[in-house]
Amino acid sequence: MQRPSGRSVDQLRPVRITRQFTCHAEGSVLVEFGNTKVICTASVDAGVPHFLRGQGQGWITAEYGMLPRSTGTRMGREAARGKQGGRTVEIQRLIGRSLRAAVDLKALGENSITIDCDVIQADGGTRTASITGACVALVDAINAMIAKGMIKTSPLKRMIASVSVGIYEGEPVLDLDYPEDSSAETDMNIVLGDDGGIIEIQGTAEAEPFSESEFASMLALAKKGIAELHQLQKAALAS
Amino acid sequence: MQRPSGRSVDQLRPVRITRQFTCHAEGSVLVEFGNTKVICTASVDAGVPHFLRGQGQGWITAEYGMLPRSTGTRMGREAARGKQGGRTVEIQRLIGRSLRAAVDLKALGENSITIDCDVIQADGGTRTASITGACVALVDAINAMIAKGMIKTSPLKRMIASVSVGIYEGEPVLDLDYPEDSSAETDMNIVLGDDGGIIEIQGTAEAEPFSESEFASMLALAKKGIAELHQLQKAALAS
Amino acid sequence: MQRPSGRSVDQLRPVRITRQFTCHAEGSVLVEFGNTKVICTASVDAGVPHFLRGQGQGWITAEYGMLPRSTGTRMGREAARGKQGGRTVEIQRLIGRSLRAAVDLKALGENSITIDCDVIQADGGTRTASITGACVALVDAINAMIAKGMIKTSPLKRMIASVSVGIYEGEPVLDLDYPEDSSAETDMNIVLGDDGGIIEIQGTAEAEPFSESEFASMLALAKKGIAELHQLQKAALAS
Amino acid sequence: MQRPSGRSVDQLRPVRITRQFTCHAEGSVLVEFGNTKVICTASVDAGVPHFLRGQGQGWITAEYGMLPRSTGTRMGREAARGKQGGRTVEIQRLIGRSLRAAVDLKALGENSITIDCDVIQADGGTRTASITGACVALVDAINAMIAKGMIKTSPLKRMIASVSVGIYEGEPVLDLDYPEDSSAETDMNIVLGDDGGIIEIQGTAEAEPFSESEFASMLALAKKGIAELHQLQKAALAS
Amino acid sequence: MQRPSGRSVDQLRPVRITRQFTCHAEGSVLVEFGNTKVICTASVDAGVPHFLRGQGQGWITAEYGMLPRSTGTRMGREAARGKQGGRTVEIQRLIGRSLRAAVDLKALGENSITIDCDVIQADGGTRTASITGACVALVDAINAMIAKGMIKTSPLKRMIASVSVGIYEGEPVLDLDYPEDSSAETDMNIVLGDDGGIIEIQGTAEAEPFSESEFASMLALAKKGIAELHQLQKAALAS
Amino acid sequence: MQRPSGRSVDQLRPVRITRQFTCHAEGSVLVEFGNTKVICTASVDAGVPHFLRGQGQGWITAEYGMLPRSTGTRMGREAARGKQGGRTVEIQRLIGRSLRAAVDLKALGENSITIDCDVIQADGGTRTASITGACVALVDAINAMIAKGMIKTSPLKRMIASVSVGIYEGEPVLDLDYPEDSSAETDMNIVLGDDGGIIEIQGTAEAEPFSESEFASMLALAKKGIAELHQLQKAALAS
Repeated sequence: MQRPSGRSVDQLRPVRITRQFTCHAEGSVLVEFGNTKVICTASVDAGVPHFLRGQGQGWITAEYGMLPRSTGTRMGREAARGKQGGRTVEIQRLIGRSLRAAVDLKALGENSITIDCDVIQADGGTRTASITGACVALVDAINAMIAKGMIKTSPLKRMIASVSVGIYEGEPVLDLDYPEDSSAETDMNIVLGDDGGIIEIQGTAEAEPFSESEFASMLALAKKGIAELHQLQKAALAS
Repeated sequence: MQRPSGRSVDQLRPVRITRQFTCHAEGSVLVEFGNTKVICTASVDAGVPHFLRGQGQGWITAEYGMLPRSTGTRMGREAARGKQGGRTVEIQRLIGRSLRAAVDLKALGENSITIDCDVIQADGGTRTASITGACVALVDAINAMIAKGMIKTSPLKRMIASVSVGIYEGEPVLDLDYPEDSSAETDMNIVLGDDGGIIEIQGTAEAEPFSESEFASMLALAKKGIAELHQLQKAALAS
Repeated sequence: MQRPSGRSVDQLRPVRITRQFTCHAEGSVLVEFGNTKVICTASVDAGVPHFLRGQGQGWITAEYGMLPRSTGTRMGREAARGKQGGRTVEIQRLIGRSLRAAVDLKALGENSITIDCDVIQADGGTRTASITGACVALVDAINAMIAKGMIKTSPLKRMIASVSVGIYEGEPVLDLDYPEDSSAETDMNIVLGDDGGIIEIQGTAEAEPFSESEFASMLALAKKGIAELHQLQKAALAS
Repeated sequence: MQRPSGRSVDQLRPVRITRQFTCHAEGSVLVEFGNTKVICTASVDAGVPHFLRGQGQGWITAEYGMLPRSTGTRMGREAARGKQGGRTVEIQRLIGRSLRAAVDLKALGENSITIDCDVIQADGGTRTASITGACVALVDAINAMIAKGMIKTSPLKRMIASVSVGIYEGEPVLDLDYPEDSSAETDMNIVLGDDGGIIEIQGTAEAEPFSESEFASMLALAKKGIAELHQLQKAALAS
Repeated sequence: MQRPSGRSVDQLRPVRITRQFTCHAEGSVLVEFGNTKVICTASVDAGVPHFLRGQGQGWITAEYGMLPRSTGTRMGREAARGKQGGRTVEIQRLIGRSLRAAVDLKALGENSITIDCDVIQADGGTRTASITGACVALVDAINAMIAKGMIKTSPLKRMIASVSVGIYEGEPVLDLDYPEDSSAETDMNIVLGDDGGIIEIQGTAEAEPFSESEFASMLALAKKGIAELHQLQKAALAS
Repeated sequence: MQRPSGRSVDQLRPVRITRQFTCHAEGSVLVEFGNTKVICTASVDAGVPHFLRGQGQGWITAEYGMLPRSTGTRMGREAARGKQGGRTVEIQRLIGRSLRAAVDLKALGENSITIDCDVIQADGGTRTASITGACVALVDAINAMIAKGMIKTSPLKRMIASVSVGIYEGEPVLDLDYPEDSSAETDMNIVLGDDGGIIEIQGTAEAEPFSESEFASMLALAKKGIAELHQLQKAALAS
């Protein structure tokens, strides 16, 4: 089996994490997984949504979008169609849930952080790149909150990162790009903490079920890839 | 650890599958997982959606809803609010995807089956009950298509069933009810084929990550529970 | 003239009223007029809508829906289309208005009751079955409010019930089922109190106008049928 | 009992019907019932809606709206809020249904007439004024169709007109204006053909039920009032 | 060059401004520019929108609509389609912005005036007629506020009026009607104060750019026409 | 008078035009006017919208959006709110109209080009930057069409570019940034062709009217600035 990109089965695409990509947001990151490019911003607000008021905890939520021509064929603009599609909703719920697992919401105080992940160029794996980049933006936003005196210490419990794995032409592979993703038999998105814990697993058999041993192989690939992503996140935050 | 219901950790709630629950749909099933009750109908249409026309294959899609007072507190009616919520969208995509993995879409011909899962009483696990009941309704709909001469042989590749598993008070348990679900540390929904293959895994750490060994325990519980569900599906279809 | 069902012109379909059909709502009734089956729940909330605040009175409102495959051909789901259709709006306004006439809103205090009527199987007369069943659910909800100490005495002024009448093949008939309804020349829905008063009359000539004497015959049939419905409501509440 | 306007109980408000009020529509009428003023237009289109194609019959539908400041307090604009309210939907369905009863839809051929009733000033009875004025606009539109050769003979079966009646301070009165309407115990809208047949009756007890004898008195008032309206329609069409 | 209407290039259509056209609004004007007829109402509310609270200033906003059959071919009703079109939004923003320039918002106090411009018959120039008529309605509303004691002195800084100019068959013309507008090479809407200042200029080349000298000619025509409109406004207000 | 940025009154911000910014669109440009950054893509489709079919001409349309945190304070995402705001609609109509003036639509054949302008960072002048960048993307898209054989020769009639001018602290200035824009007395957006013709002028007095001589000064500044922008466009296309 030859991957379309020529990568080995356990090889990530080149990953780049650029902080302070735009100037207004408390955290702003351009994350690139190969040709997949996502702008991730983290915006801080004092206060929490209505359903949490007075409970002494904070909130993190996420929204996701794709520029209409981030893809090979132009997609209709969701704002113009008047609603977000099902895939968008599913992805932004995943991003928000994952990032909440990175933070001690009590320690965040009654403050909110809104994550926006906007795909400017898509080549597979937009949701895993989004989570990986958003966690870096989140750290920058937390540091901005500390600098402003909104909180005293960081509520961050762990860094999280995410990658996709799948069965492509019968073989488990790491970090699928679009040509692989669109013909993969199985597609799995995994989110792990840098303490090794599993935050989220979403595995889908596109046509044929996968076996437990295939699952185990994919999980192993994901662990390897995410360990590298955690290193890249740390390097970006150190720079 | 004592489960609120007094069940053992690997014990399903009483499950009932009632076919021909309503009279109009080609397949109509009331599925009960304890106090969770869902009406699952399968509706047959000649033809396929626009994006599949002329490709010689069929389509299966699903919609999900909850009656406003299926829950302890009345929820706003989605039709009145003018949009389906994110959770609804996420669940109906899962149901549709899972059921498509049960069927050879080519063998379905250019026909569509729409699954409707409407929760009339909720007590945790509505999506897994929906999938389990909908697969029985799907079989009835396929048989109706054969009876009408729309297709000659059944395109069913496997029965699928689904159950939730989770970590409740530190221990893996099978088939969470609402009191368990609302305080579980981890919640995982698993869809398996009766040939043992994995169709879908969706596991979420609500606050703390889970470990690979916890994952393995949960998967083992799910396999046991789903094997029982497959027996109950077969018994229902045989009656 | 022979009715499709073989009933006599002044004969109701078999009517069943099942209380406590689901477990969460303060009032929950399954009402069946023959093959028409509607789940009617009454949900209690402290407080009133904005436009009534501080006026020392309560409110009763109603919402109506049909499961997509409650009918012979699947209807689009209103939540998915993003709006309630005109027929839905018309029916839920009728149900709410009728039930408000059953209750002394001042005596209800600043509390609200929301009625949900969800048709799970349709065979004509869904709005009249809804009103008849909802009034029983309303009584259960009122009793729950008394039990909780929200109000001291019942604000119920009268029981209301409803039936359809029409001109079918030239002759006035009681309680039209779908085959009759779809070819009736005239269709009238009547809501009466058990004190004999008229709460609502909605009569529509589908193609040809009807005469005053036809109207009188239909009203007489409705009075007979509704008297029986009031007996059935009382029996259900007594059990 | 003294009516706020000083009218006798069986007295209509001054009614004016002005044809060709605007220049583009095939039929355009300004109808005034006292201070209630409605622009009724009838627009002709070749062709019918999708659900009627190929059935050799025409269609008549209606839409209703109120200018935001047609009322004492400004109402939100429905176009800006993004949906028509329940009252609007209920009224436009009544108008459409009533006018379809005036026409032999087969004789209309596969053509459509859209009625628009836009209230520019409201003082009670906007729906009955709308129906009365729209029927005149409909006749003008039919004549325009004959003139254009779209149909050979008029499909009009009867003129229809409408008025409200109610119980005001315990007494049945004809043609309620806003001060009466807002405090009436019962409100009934009646649509009659000029052949004496009943097209539509919608009677609602606002708080207390009404009796059969009250109903009979109201119907008698409506018949007297509508007979006068039919004369005014004929006079307008003759001028 | 001959204008379709036979007017000279610098000639307005007959303009009529009728005050107190409807009875409920604080200001209500029917404005006619030839066959273009618009009802302009100004509605007064104590209080300001959320974003202005506590800033000691008032607000003026505008909404615009067309009756469905105000035009040669019936347009879909925006309320029924569930959204306002782009042209509507663009026009109502222009009207609101222009009228705010007529008033000292500080001197208005924390009060709001809502302008509604509803076109009942369209023949080109509906936005310019709207602005011209709305300014008169605004003055009447301000006078009503003074009479009610909401404000002590008039916050009006200047009267504003508006007209369209364009290049029709190569020549600059004033106040385009629909036949001219639909084939004009350039279309410009100009709003001027009666103190000679420019409030708004919106000029659009439909196909070919226009030159600075053409612009100067059009501006001169607009100044002439608007001077006449200011006279007509003053005459209307004096009557 | 000192501009906040220290620029002279007739000085543009640094402008950068980066072609092939993303990889999928036929034309893709990042345009920067100082800190204002907009991604402009041009997407080619065979065929035209319904209302133009069979007329032998093409179509160009535009959509505009801002990333939620492109601004100092996070704006709600239009896709999540379910509608585009009035400002968005106004801007995208301006962009589309302006670009259609750059192209001979007949020579485009029955093909469509959709322009998407998405602001990733905002600092005033987003609409003028959008038009300037989009015209370069349009040229790249036209060249791609020629390369694919969809058209033989370029339908481009002229390059267009746009800049804002305004009165800031009493003095006309070129290319307002956000600090200037938010306190300017007058704001004007001008679109010119490289043949000197005026495509669009939109000038708005925010509070006080502007005079003809102020208008002339602003137009002169705009001509100077746009001449420079046309040079920058040409340089970008030559590179």
